[in-house]
Amino acid sequence: MQDIEILGNISQGTDFIKKIKNKKFVFSFVISYTATCEIPGITVAGANPDLLKFTAAADAEFIQYGYCKSIDAIPMTPDGKPTPALLTKVAIESADIPYFVVNAGSKVIPKLPCVELGLEPGKNITHESALDQKEVKKAVERGKIVGKSLSASTDCLIIGESIPGGTTTALGVLKGFGIQASVSSSMSQNPTDLKNRTVQNALKRLQSRDPLDIVAQLGDPMIPTVAGMLSTSSEFTNVILAGGTQMAAVLAFAKNIGFNEKNTVIGTTSYIMEDKTANLLNTVRQISDIPVLVAKLRLGQSEIIGLRAYAEGFVKEGAGAGGTSIACMIKTGLDSEKLLSLTEKEYRRITLR
Amino acid sequence: MQDIEILGNISQGTDFIKKIKNKKFVFSFVISYTATCEIPGITVAGANPDLLKFTAAADAEFIQYGYCKSIDAIPMTPDGKPTPALLTKVAIESADIPYFVVNAGSKVIPKLPCVELGLEPGKNITHESALDQKEVKKAVERGKIVGKSLSASTDCLIIGESIPGGTTTALGVLKGFGIQASVSSSMSQNPTDLKNRTVQNALKRLQSRDPLDIVAQLGDPMIPTVAGMLSTSSEFTNVILAGGTQMAAVLAFAKNIGFNEKNTVIGTTSYIMEDKTANLLNTVRQISDIPVLVAKLRLGQSEIIGLRAYAEGFVKEGAGAGGTSIACMIKTGLDSEKLLSLTEKEYRRITLR
Repeated sequence: MQDIEILGNISQGTDFIKKIKNKKFVFSFVISYTATCEIPGITVAGANPDLLKFTAAADAEFIQYGYCKSIDAIPMTPDGKPTPALLTKVAIESADIPYFVVNAGSKVIPKLPCVELGLEPGKNITHESALDQKEVKKAVERGKIVGKSLSASTDCLIIGESIPGGTTTALGVLKGFGIQASVSSSMSQNPTDLKNRTVQNALKRLQSRDPLDIVAQLGDPMIPTVAGMLSTSSEFTNVILAGGTQMAAVLAFAKNIGFNEKNTVIGTTSYIMEDKTANLLNTVRQISDIPVLVAKLRLGQSEIIGLRAYAEGFVKEGAGAGGTSIACMIKTGLDSEKLLSLTEKEYRRITLR
Repeated sequence: MQDIEILGNISQGTDFIKKIKNKKFVFSFVISYTATCEIPGITVAGANPDLLKFTAAADAEFIQYGYCKSIDAIPMTPDGKPTPALLTKVAIESADIPYFVVNAGSKVIPKLPCVELGLEPGKNITHESALDQKEVKKAVERGKIVGKSLSASTDCLIIGESIPGGTTTALGVLKGFGIQASVSSSMSQNPTDLKNRTVQNALKRLQSRDPLDIVAQLGDPMIPTVAGMLSTSSEFTNVILAGGTQMAAVLAFAKNIGFNEKNTVIGTTSYIMEDKTANLLNTVRQISDIPVLVAKLRLGQSEIIGLRAYAEGFVKEGAGAGGTSIACMIKTGLDSEKLLSLTEKEYRRITLR
């Protein structure tokens, strides 16, 4: 596995890869929404706030169908930087990994079969609590049920997410737990000040160190849902939390509800690890001694400008791209050069439509 | 497997049981609604029409939680005949079979994680088309997606259903396809005349032998959904269609969209096979040469009147009870005597609440 770097708990990471080599994988894609994304300038998709609510649903539809049903185009910046769901789609299709969409409060319901958890979208943490505590409990409870069902007949459950504005709520939850953290961004120039200011203001509402209250005040529906899923699934099978700092926030909360650390890794892209504003490894270490697996993708070698942008600090990760790429390499033995060529082919298919 | 009788294609049925012995199973429970159930006298639950719309959701919740969230009680007739979901719950819990609820047009959305297909409830076939053809296509398409995902990491997918009034729409679809059929009933005195009259009237609207039109005019959302699920899942794994005459209607439609007959069986209870008004085996034979596996349950030996009623012609089957009981016996080696004692224990638990 030359294209997977193991950081953090290296021996456990090495064992983890051995355990799941050539085994069965399932990918669950948790889509959600936080109105925090509506703060001007906080996310790359913010240029058009009306479209933000479609982001997660469009990603889910693109992975399923190869095109979107809820909007006319495939999520891509005007200058051709594609959604990371492109990488995810290539990875799970190449490795024939089954796919479940879990709707944990997305504002738009995707036009496909979708595990519906019946959760509300999260509110803007600038103005008010993200969720009420009852909703946090419900997310955990339903996440636990889904995690159990999805993990029952697989050797490895990959959990990815799509929630615009989610790095800010992740930062909020991490800070709420007293963890030294800074977070990544889908933009090259991370609006760190804006994120920190948003979180500092929201932190003022926090009256306790109660984990439920921390997530209710500062979080989003994705975090307790994925924590619930992790809690049960890691009892039964191996779990890849596919993402960057948002999965660190999940870990921080999950630690309070319980999960099996021996079966859990974070899987992400090298572009997250290279992000100097977000020291993911350092953040994770403060929470749990689990491995961080890094997909050494080669998008920087691409002839396609929009893909090369990932290596230049744009987008970087999302929609479970890193974790599914890792799973694909472990399951099939493909290397990241082959993944790049498949990704370029898929990029050309969608841009020629 | 002394308590499983193999009928129909006996050699294929014997092989089927061998293939899945001690293997992995997944149970998918498809809940739906047809306003046809509102015809007075057509279903046992008809005594209180306001409650009909809760039946499927309550079954789903009971299997998940052991109690219902959408209504105060567990579905049971006033004189103590329990929902067949009781048998289903006992079977999947004893065999540790993971469980997915698929909402294919239920009027009430259950309070649990649920694969949402975004389908409308079916209309009353007495008055109008059950569904429009676009909706039938959508059900098939989404059923195919779910069937593929659910079957990808299991050795056997069990598909059960709960749709009040569903035997009448099943009869409609079977007749629409020109199949000699009569259907079963949840009542001891099957209201055969009423069902036949309802179907005869609806058949007058049928202008063609187009399968889409047959299901649109006479069917319900469950039938095309399960047919879609069968179509893809039977390509990848073994499938138990858990039910009686309703699954025969699914087969009749699925034959037109294609499925792998070699991997498919019907699994039902002995009480359906003993139902003289519904010759299931004869109906199935007209459609496809697949095995019919019969769970020889021993509810007639129970000390509990409400359970004994199953052997006296009430309820008989539903919520995948027969198919999951068969799966449980094949996976664990439990016999139906043991299943009866677990069922009695569960009955006592819910009636003592």
